[in-house]
Amino acid sequence: MIDLKEHPHRRLNPLTGEWVLVSPHRTKRPWQGQMEKVPPETRAAYDPKCYLCPGNERAGGHRNPAYSGTFAFDNDFAALIPGTPAGQVAPHALLQAEGVSGLCRVICFSPRHDLTMAEMAVEEIRRVVDTWTEQYVELNGTPGIAYVEIFENRGEMMGCSNPHPHCQIWSSSTIPNEIAKEDAAQNSYFRENGRTLLSDYLEFELSAGERLVSVNEHFVALVPWWAVWPFETMVISRRAASGLDELTSDERNGLADILKQLTTRYDNLFEVSFPYSGGFHQRPATSSREAWHLHAHYYPPLLRSATVRKFLVGYEMLAMPQRDITPEAAALRLRELSDIHFKLKI
Amino acid sequence: MIDLKEHPHRRLNPLTGEWVLVSPHRTKRPWQGQMEKVPPETRAAYDPKCYLCPGNERAGGHRNPAYSGTFAFDNDFAALIPGTPAGQVAPHALLQAEGVSGLCRVICFSPRHDLTMAEMAVEEIRRVVDTWTEQYVELNGTPGIAYVEIFENRGEMMGCSNPHPHCQIWSSSTIPNEIAKEDAAQNSYFRENGRTLLSDYLEFELSAGERLVSVNEHFVALVPWWAVWPFETMVISRRAASGLDELTSDERNGLADILKQLTTRYDNLFEVSFPYSGGFHQRPATSSREAWHLHAHYYPPLLRSATVRKFLVGYEMLAMPQRDITPEAAALRLRELSDIHFKLKI
Ligand SMILES: O=P(O)(O)O[C@H]1O[C@H](CO)[C@@H](O)[C@H](O)[C@H]1O
Ligand SMILES: O=P(O)(O)O[C@H]1O[C@H](CO)[C@@H](O)[C@H](O)[C@H]1O
Repeated sequence: MIDLKEHPHRRLNPLTGEWVLVSPHRTKRPWQGQMEKVPPETRAAYDPKCYLCPGNERAGGHRNPAYSGTFAFDNDFAALIPGTPAGQVAPHALLQAEGVSGLCRVICFSPRHDLTMAEMAVEEIRRVVDTWTEQYVELNGTPGIAYVEIFENRGEMMGCSNPHPHCQIWSSSTIPNEIAKEDAAQNSYFRENGRTLLSDYLEFELSAGERLVSVNEHFVALVPWWAVWPFETMVISRRAASGLDELTSDERNGLADILKQLTTRYDNLFEVSFPYSGGFHQRPATSSREAWHLHAHYYPPLLRSATVRKFLVGYEMLAMPQRDITPEAAALRLRELSDIHFKLKI
Repeated sequence: MIDLKEHPHRRLNPLTGEWVLVSPHRTKRPWQGQMEKVPPETRAAYDPKCYLCPGNERAGGHRNPAYSGTFAFDNDFAALIPGTPAGQVAPHALLQAEGVSGLCRVICFSPRHDLTMAEMAVEEIRRVVDTWTEQYVELNGTPGIAYVEIFENRGEMMGCSNPHPHCQIWSSSTIPNEIAKEDAAQNSYFRENGRTLLSDYLEFELSAGERLVSVNEHFVALVPWWAVWPFETMVISRRAASGLDELTSDERNGLADILKQLTTRYDNLFEVSFPYSGGFHQRPATSSREAWHLHAHYYPPLLRSATVRKFLVGYEMLAMPQRDITPEAAALRLRELSDIHFKLKI
């Protein structure tokens, strides 16, 4: 009989149909490879050289207003731009391409250069949730936009080139790969069961308990059964809202609260500003409101300490993702941490 | 009309059915993020502390023989181990797991601690090809093994914890995700066209020319139409061999030669020992010999210089991969480089 705490096994991600290899016995391996830099302890509240701070100049001669809450603007180096020709090109049946247009934006969470979400007040995070919602409503309703991805790269390790608290939005005329997979899985689950896939998943996780990280009245943060990154989590709305636009004001507060709790626990894990990439998955412009269930994924790279990360490299790129600690062990560690930020405890 | 040199577009990978977003206009973006460490210039030919050097001690009290060519041994910290119970576990229809067993090995390419494949002689690389082939034949024929992945993580940036030239083999009782996708795509292409997918692809690329990196009588190295990483390449056998076991002796020499050429060009690009993860995709134990076409994928992270890499992070993890330079521009740069290693030119 297989014991998931002991034996190598694979687990299925029902949102994508893909497997992850779990090797619970492998944490004994010594690490002699690359060590990461620890981010500097303190930053100034205002940095005259930061292109995201209020009043400063950006690329191309733009100047930021003296904003006091959140601030959204079009990305000066956008990967997707409006008005791209939509045609298809196929020099051979095996070589297909098509034009993609879109809009890329940046949202500053706060005028304060020295904060991260974990160190912001819940009321301030609520203003970020409001801005996300406004942007989602506007972009998802823009003709020619099929999907709106809101995401944050936190920390140098995740390719973030500016520590000023901010996220990005890339919206596109086509549905990205991961969304296409989740759309198909959620639609087919809803057709068969008359409930959203994540409603049923959440119900089970709330009763099982062992993968929960933190919960409030409206949202749940957990390490999914199929987590790939060591401390990967999902934030799922208890009610099957299909997007940020369907949340009530109370639910928006609940989302702000759960994000504060989750990012605080992340920072407390290794007592460092915890790097991650994270973002929302929500209803594409023309998809079913019934089948889609709003959620966020958080993918943090650290494994053992502030300086030893997990590398998803050779086997992971060529064959399938592999993880060393079980999702249950990761959830237990995060759950047992304080939800008061370590910087406030000293 | 869409111009692939100018306009953002997406391209289809026919081996996986997934898309990559190409943003050709985006290389103007300044980089203020993480800078990578450049690997040290020189290493000793023998390092008494290296657990891969001949005669040295490894974990668990094993000692390496005084080997003079290649050396293969069972990984002391294997992610997959033989004899894992094969059962399935499903606490809920949405939470599925199953036991995976397998065998993990390490292959040292050379007793010399200071070499990389790019600096080895073609005859020495040929011995590596022979060892890969022996291992593939043995493991792919082992009862209970469904797939054999041979891969190399080169450089600290790719999670490699020891610079001694070596690769790994992870063989498993189940077919990994990427192989399952390529198996399906190649089988269906063969059924419809009576030729392998990569035969037809290669024929087109040889006539088009613009994505070729280097060629010899038996193998072709090219930047695929659907490349994700900036300087990603594929090495494809001209004849539709389904695995290393079907190569003639001449073809093995051809493979050694093309790998020497490719890794040399890689090192010459930024005049640094070029990091990458790379490995073979070949026939799983019970798959069709007719439909499978042997190839290797190389995924190197560097983008602009020896210290500025591409990060596949937020958007890439949550939505779809994105690249900044076109595959054609990358191929041109690699093709124009000398195939004499920069260290030999001084
Ligand atoms: O086996 P190694 O070299 O210690 O480990 C390296 O390659 C493995 C396979 O790609 C990865 O799972 C590890 O994260 C990486 O550090
Ligand atoms: O847009 P940024 O923050 O400059 O860029 C960062 O996020 C992007 C979206 O995930 C990635 O494509 C880039 O590789 C990364 O450096």
